[in-house]
Amino acid sequence: MRKRFDQELEILNAEIIKMGSLIETAIETSVNALVDQDMSLIEIVNNLEIEIDEMEKIIEKHCMNLLVQQQPVASDLRLIEAALKLITDMERIGDHAEDIAEITKLFENKKFIKNLVHIPQMAEVTISMVKRSLAAYVNKDEKLAIQVCIDDDIVDNLFVTVKTELIDMIREDSNNGEQAIDLIMIAKYFERIGDHAQNIAEWVIFSVTGEHKNTDNIGKTIQAGSFAE
Amino acid sequence: MRKRFDQELEILNAEIIKMGSLIETAIETSVNALVDQDMSLIEIVNNLEIEIDEMEKIIEKHCMNLLVQQQPVASDLRLIEAALKLITDMERIGDHAEDIAEITKLFENKKFIKNLVHIPQMAEVTISMVKRSLAAYVNKDEKLAIQVCIDDDIVDNLFVTVKTELIDMIREDSNNGEQAIDLIMIAKYFERIGDHAQNIAEWVIFSVTGEHKNTDNIGKTIQAGSFAE
Repeated sequence: MRKRFDQELEILNAEIIKMGSLIETAIETSVNALVDQDMSLIEIVNNLEIEIDEMEKIIEKHCMNLLVQQQPVASDLRLIEAALKLITDMERIGDHAEDIAEITKLFENKKFIKNLVHIPQMAEVTISMVKRSLAAYVNKDEKLAIQVCIDDDIVDNLFVTVKTELIDMIREDSNNGEQAIDLIMIAKYFERIGDHAQNIAEWVIFSVTGEHKNTDNIGKTIQAGSFAE
Repeated sequence: MRKRFDQELEILNAEIIKMGSLIETAIETSVNALVDQDMSLIEIVNNLEIEIDEMEKIIEKHCMNLLVQQQPVASDLRLIEAALKLITDMERIGDHAEDIAEITKLFENKKFIKNLVHIPQMAEVTISMVKRSLAAYVNKDEKLAIQVCIDDDIVDNLFVTVKTELIDMIREDSNNGEQAIDLIMIAKYFERIGDHAQNIAEWVIFSVTGEHKNTDNIGKTIQAGSFAE
């Protein structure tokens, strides 16, 4: 029974890593579509989103079967519980990549009002957050998960930077308004992707420790030395 | 065993309705805080969000116990599966009510650049969508769930209206830029709340029919007569 459960867990981990690699590619492709104004990439993002949805359903079914047939307890139960929750966040990340690609369509053949610097940075940090949060799940690595939660501050700060810059550009010339708002929306989607990656990491912490932690102020808390290991 | 399961389901339904009533109040309170610029309501929204998070955990635990102890199959299994998924959407709605309250703080003692008409309408429609999607879950009412999915178009159209109006206001006077963007963000959160209510309704359709349906174009599909009952 135990051996069977461990084998099933290995398959589950492989499925989650596969779904993770799809969402990393979706984020990367959506930001490339935007920066290079390459409309041919939009369809690729849409197809990735469909694959991501399918992976979510496969993994969910797998988790439900594991729960009902193997009746896991304690940390085994938490692992499945966490998997069921984190695939929802992963699926939403796929949706947001598609949302970004959708807005990108509006920029076809239009000149950008500014060079895109911070938005690609947001993409880079969020891809790394997703990758590490899933590695933390598979390796039951609480420290790595905590690091992902801390890194969400980088994404939040980049969002504030993008927003402030674009508001200044509107002030300079109100004709920048429409594109500025679309770019702020895209930055907002990346900020939400960061939130979802943080959620994934929080589920990992739960699966390892059994505790639900709100890690929104975790950076400050760790500095103050009050976050229990 | 069957009787026990049915009793547990009744408790589960009551818990979901209770959580639903908390999120309806959270949406309503957040829009009142905004429209009346009543900062005292913000803390109420924050407290509701904490209660909503707690309810999510209670319901989740309950579902996991039901799965492991009662090993439900077929439509019973789907009911629990749907409950596990829709509480995630409900929890996110609570987060968005808090997000709206957070932006509302920025308006303290400031005059609005326009009368808020469409944003309160978005609140009204989304509250009704949440209420009906949960009634559909409890009563296994596929038709009601489909209606909720159709109504999401109303919310999407209101978002486009708000965005267009505010972009025009920026064009008239770039000093409107900052507040316009904050109001668009709030409208965007309501649009996401509508999406989450639609997700809940889609989970209800799954729990009744066993099929995952993408209902994004359901309004048009029904008009064309091709949506199978």
